[in-house]
Amino acid sequence: MRKLNLDAFVGRLARTGAEIEKELDALLTKQPRQGELARPARLMEAMRYGALGGGKRLRPFLVVSTAAAFGCAGAGPRRVGAAIELVHAYSLIHDDLPAMDDDDLRRGRATVHRAFDEATAILAGDGLLTLAFEALADPATGLDAELRATLCGGLARAAGLAGMVGGQMLDIAAETATRPLDASAIELLQALKTGAILRFSVVAGALVAGAPAPARAALDRYGQAIGAAFQIADDLLDAEGDAGAMGKRVGKDAERNKATFVAALGIEGARAKRDELVDEAIAAVDEAGLDAAGDVLRDTARFVAARRS
Amino acid sequence: MRKLNLDAFVGRLARTGAEIEKELDALLTKQPRQGELARPARLMEAMRYGALGGGKRLRPFLVVSTAAAFGCAGAGPRRVGAAIELVHAYSLIHDDLPAMDDDDLRRGRATVHRAFDEATAILAGDGLLTLAFEALADPATGLDAELRATLCGGLARAAGLAGMVGGQMLDIAAETATRPLDASAIELLQALKTGAILRFSVVAGALVAGAPAPARAALDRYGQAIGAAFQIADDLLDAEGDAGAMGKRVGKDAERNKATFVAALGIEGARAKRDELVDEAIAAVDEAGLDAAGDVLRDTARFVAARRS
Repeated sequence: MRKLNLDAFVGRLARTGAEIEKELDALLTKQPRQGELARPARLMEAMRYGALGGGKRLRPFLVVSTAAAFGCAGAGPRRVGAAIELVHAYSLIHDDLPAMDDDDLRRGRATVHRAFDEATAILAGDGLLTLAFEALADPATGLDAELRATLCGGLARAAGLAGMVGGQMLDIAAETATRPLDASAIELLQALKTGAILRFSVVAGALVAGAPAPARAALDRYGQAIGAAFQIADDLLDAEGDAGAMGKRVGKDAERNKATFVAALGIEGARAKRDELVDEAIAAVDEAGLDAAGDVLRDTARFVAARRS
Repeated sequence: MRKLNLDAFVGRLARTGAEIEKELDALLTKQPRQGELARPARLMEAMRYGALGGGKRLRPFLVVSTAAAFGCAGAGPRRVGAAIELVHAYSLIHDDLPAMDDDDLRRGRATVHRAFDEATAILAGDGLLTLAFEALADPATGLDAELRATLCGGLARAAGLAGMVGGQMLDIAAETATRPLDASAIELLQALKTGAILRFSVVAGALVAGAPAPARAALDRYGQAIGAAFQIADDLLDAEGDAGAMGKRVGKDAERNKATFVAALGIEGARAKRDELVDEAIAAVDEAGLDAAGDVLRDTARFVAARRS
């Protein structure tokens, strides 16, 4: 197996991240756009605080890299990536709320409800989620209407009751469950909570690029595999990581009786499962018919497993 | 001016409401649909509790009635109406949260965070908002892709930072403001908070029916006028109404220093403004080129001003 050149990969990730930051900044402009009566200042500040200036932008990177693997670059994939990142940012704000995970710290700074207040944080999350659909449906993207409608529907399914929101519900229920979840229940929880959006990011990139259906199906399997590998790596980081690199508290999963792969499989078992998923992901890139054009996606799978923060 | 036959109108409203209830019930089925891994039971219960079995369904009624005025009936307008009602239901759940209006009672029964818990209420709201876009983007609606994308974008703008979410932010800020808002600030607040979605309901009905652009523009003015009349009627009900008919506490606006038209204009001034808006709305129906076909919309304007709960 080719080894990951971590420095080169991180540089590429940062360059895409900077492009996405610009796109998010433009979507979150404080000036009312044409046809808008007002953009309330405090709401915009909280939305910008929650969405800008942090994070690896892994989901937009998946969109942009998948589209690029099929020869599609430019504004379309960036916009789609930014829309998915808005949904990710909303989910972090709501998950951090006192009624949910009650976190004070996120990416090394105060969470939105600590920097502003709880009502503002709830509304900022609601606003970011809604803006994601506005950004995808916008005809100014230059994407055709069929594609825009498909992307809106796909994002809603990945983010909603049978995706991210449903997964967060299962996660909260697991904390108060009398018995720890087994590996298959954790797998379902994570497939909904983090997997569905990662998977959709890859599929959305393929859709924007007009990739053929069999390639899209293979990339869907790729997205599924890296989604699961990502979550196991996250669980391993919480169990082994240090707070400085993570920018948030660690060891809190065990403390809160969180349903994690580490709890279900042990550290060694979780590592083995993660590596197996990376192999599956790389095989799926081959099946999508991507040779050298798929190398960034292969590296992404390796990166997801190897990440330190 | 023709007088409103209230009994006949309320009967019509109830019939449309029953059709929308069926549509919402189907969208909120507890069984996972094709391609879904799971629909977590507690989340579905909370979403169903928040969205089913209550409310006048005024927004769907506006969609269905506007479409019908242009000769379009059937599943399309019902689906669009149900999607907008999902957004309305989510907004009530989040507005009732302890960090927001902190209400225990809604439509005569416990609010979602009281019947379930706060985390579940936040997630149920998030899930309903997301489901609205899934319902609109769905190709099974039989609506063409251009229309589905337009509706997703329009709903997002009406519901988002320059619409409902923005209006709720202004409303919360007004409660802690040192000086009461003047009439024009209240007008802006309400145009965002309740007006944008009511207005979009009318425009969406016209879009689904393929109404010509000048008629759509006239109906947009109609939607604006009834949106404002609706809010003034709401403020008057809170100032004058009784809790039994409303199914929620009354007199709480004054208690909380809420920014209302009654506070800014007085009861008589608010009534005069409301009646003026109803006249504007009825004139806009004429301008849309609707003769007898527009009577239900004219009656809706009268109803909005005359409602008792």
